[in-house]
Amino acid sequence: MLNIINHGQVRELRLARAPVNALNTELVKLLTHSVREAMTECGAIVISGQDGIFSAGLDIVELIQFDRDGLREFWAAFFELLETVACSSIPIAAAVTGHSPAGGAVIFMLCDYRVMSSGKYLTGLNETRVGLIIPPVLQNAMARLVGPRIAEQMLVEGAMIGPEDAAKIGFVDALETGYEATIQHAINWCENLLSLPQHSMLGNRVNMRAHFKEEFANHNEASIESFVDTWFSDETQQVISALVAQLKSKK
Amino acid sequence: MLNIINHGQVRELRLARAPVNALNTELVKLLTHSVREAMTECGAIVISGQDGIFSAGLDIVELIQFDRDGLREFWAAFFELLETVACSSIPIAAAVTGHSPAGGAVIFMLCDYRVMSSGKYLTGLNETRVGLIIPPVLQNAMARLVGPRIAEQMLVEGAMIGPEDAAKIGFVDALETGYEATIQHAINWCENLLSLPQHSMLGNRVNMRAHFKEEFANHNEASIESFVDTWFSDETQQVISALVAQLKSKK
Amino acid sequence: MLNIINHGQVRELRLARAPVNALNTELVKLLTHSVREAMTECGAIVISGQDGIFSAGLDIVELIQFDRDGLREFWAAFFELLETVACSSIPIAAAVTGHSPAGGAVIFMLCDYRVMSSGKYLTGLNETRVGLIIPPVLQNAMARLVGPRIAEQMLVEGAMIGPEDAAKIGFVDALETGYEATIQHAINWCENLLSLPQHSMLGNRVNMRAHFKEEFANHNEASIESFVDTWFSDETQQVISALVAQLKSKK
Repeated sequence: MLNIINHGQVRELRLARAPVNALNTELVKLLTHSVREAMTECGAIVISGQDGIFSAGLDIVELIQFDRDGLREFWAAFFELLETVACSSIPIAAAVTGHSPAGGAVIFMLCDYRVMSSGKYLTGLNETRVGLIIPPVLQNAMARLVGPRIAEQMLVEGAMIGPEDAAKIGFVDALETGYEATIQHAINWCENLLSLPQHSMLGNRVNMRAHFKEEFANHNEASIESFVDTWFSDETQQVISALVAQLKSKK
Repeated sequence: MLNIINHGQVRELRLARAPVNALNTELVKLLTHSVREAMTECGAIVISGQDGIFSAGLDIVELIQFDRDGLREFWAAFFELLETVACSSIPIAAAVTGHSPAGGAVIFMLCDYRVMSSGKYLTGLNETRVGLIIPPVLQNAMARLVGPRIAEQMLVEGAMIGPEDAAKIGFVDALETGYEATIQHAINWCENLLSLPQHSMLGNRVNMRAHFKEEFANHNEASIESFVDTWFSDETQQVISALVAQLKSKK
Repeated sequence: MLNIINHGQVRELRLARAPVNALNTELVKLLTHSVREAMTECGAIVISGQDGIFSAGLDIVELIQFDRDGLREFWAAFFELLETVACSSIPIAAAVTGHSPAGGAVIFMLCDYRVMSSGKYLTGLNETRVGLIIPPVLQNAMARLVGPRIAEQMLVEGAMIGPEDAAKIGFVDALETGYEATIQHAINWCENLLSLPQHSMLGNRVNMRAHFKEEFANHNEASIESFVDTWFSDETQQVISALVAQLKSKK
């Protein structure tokens, strides 16, 4: 489900939940735990995926079975992961090794650095297309990368784009050709930071990312309830059910 | 003065006040009314102009005749229009079909999307050059499109730029060749949004634009009074009077 | 130490403290005084350097001799300079005539406009590499120029870049070939602003830069104390001492 690979002081957390690294409760909690563990044991983290897929986002096949309590619990766990990544005490680079829609993109958006594999891959926050509404903290995180104008237009449309466009607008920071090269690039990025005076590297990093703490503190129970309400609305249930039926027929 | 043209669920509001779509009290109030009406009757709005001119901005030939009360009333009506556009409950695309200085640019800045006709047209906020000071809410709206660095420099200088430069810095989102093609591009953009799940498209849109409500609420009577003071200052009256004389001699 | 050269209504303040325009207490106080004096006597200011060097930043050879009180006093004086530049009542253009790391870059970041000489020069905030932590007000000032994504990555890494890259990301606004041409470009930029109606040029400028006042007000005694603590930490003293030894051996 999650392979842990140490490269000196850099720990790679490689998503490994076949077939598409869909984020279910177990993977979300395991990733949160592993990021926290790495903070106490390593100098920097790489989150990577499989060749061709970083993560397909939330596992809606599992989620559609939840009642309100179950979904509330999942959503709280997912936000605990996001806050853990955004507020990590050590740098995190994402090796976006393939497709990365929705929840997959949300994770890498909150990392310190993103390198994506070139190829016919798609990424973006397509929540509008599956009937979901993105909380303000994640809208702001996207605006932080690409600016408020492009973030608004991409989010409202639920736009999906390829690696070249993603790099052009700053949604990812660099491109790399090939699976191993993408992961190595992320490791190298971490190693460069680890070669610097650590107290000032971390001190400057903490200041630049302090706003994440405030913003996640604003993501309260009302925000969770609002997500659960949208999820169980007739419009969203219809879109999600059709999507799940489509996914099952592919298997 | 304003042609209303329905394209299915998209309503085009075409500015039609010869010769240059100057924004006087009547047009400002009519446009505000028409945007509100469209919100209840349509799915999306296109604001367009005439071939070669989107809008020349405020009708200073009319405005220069106002006393303090008259100008105060006009300025309040203009801001009611701007708030109505920025806080519209449905998406608005601007088809910038030609020149669009000052007040014309202010309107399209607050829309969701901007497509401009290629050609020897100029746009920008040249208020500095006519002796006027732009309220913070509009400075922020410009910074939202082009970033604070470029916004500051363009606003302080009162810079006017062509379509290519405007697209390069994000002051407009796309270019199109020809009058009809520009309008059709804006209609297509709206239709794409209308093909998506509406509750999530609108839900994501509301969140991304929520800050406009707060910012317009901060544009209070003191801001209006400050604009009126500047307008009636000797320096500004001198610049405006020279400009009006120049405009009249052209007729 | 500082040459004052009048070009009509534009006053050039040319840093002239051989060999590298290092910012010591005397130069910092003299520059603060000269900016204030220019505000009452001129229309705009150009801050320039020597051919090949704008400023090497803080004079750590002087600073390393200070005790806590001395350093506290220097840091307060340096921030008085920065606030004076950022909140100047008249426009300031920086003619970045060569290398400009750390404190040198901080000064030009707070000006209205930056033109840099092309060539094998480096600029950037490399504080991480010398063990220092940049206060939030200066991190925000950098994000204002290049956006929060690039600002975070450059600050955390302490990255130094050349003029072409600096212009590409907006860290400087324009490039020029040659020493005199760079200074002339900055003078021309000022003269253009001085040819506009002054009350509206200055009025629009004040609004766009109002946030600097608030941000510098937040840079309080706690921020100064935090800088002093970092400076006297073992890690930073080690890096700085090595740097000073290296500088002295070059002489």
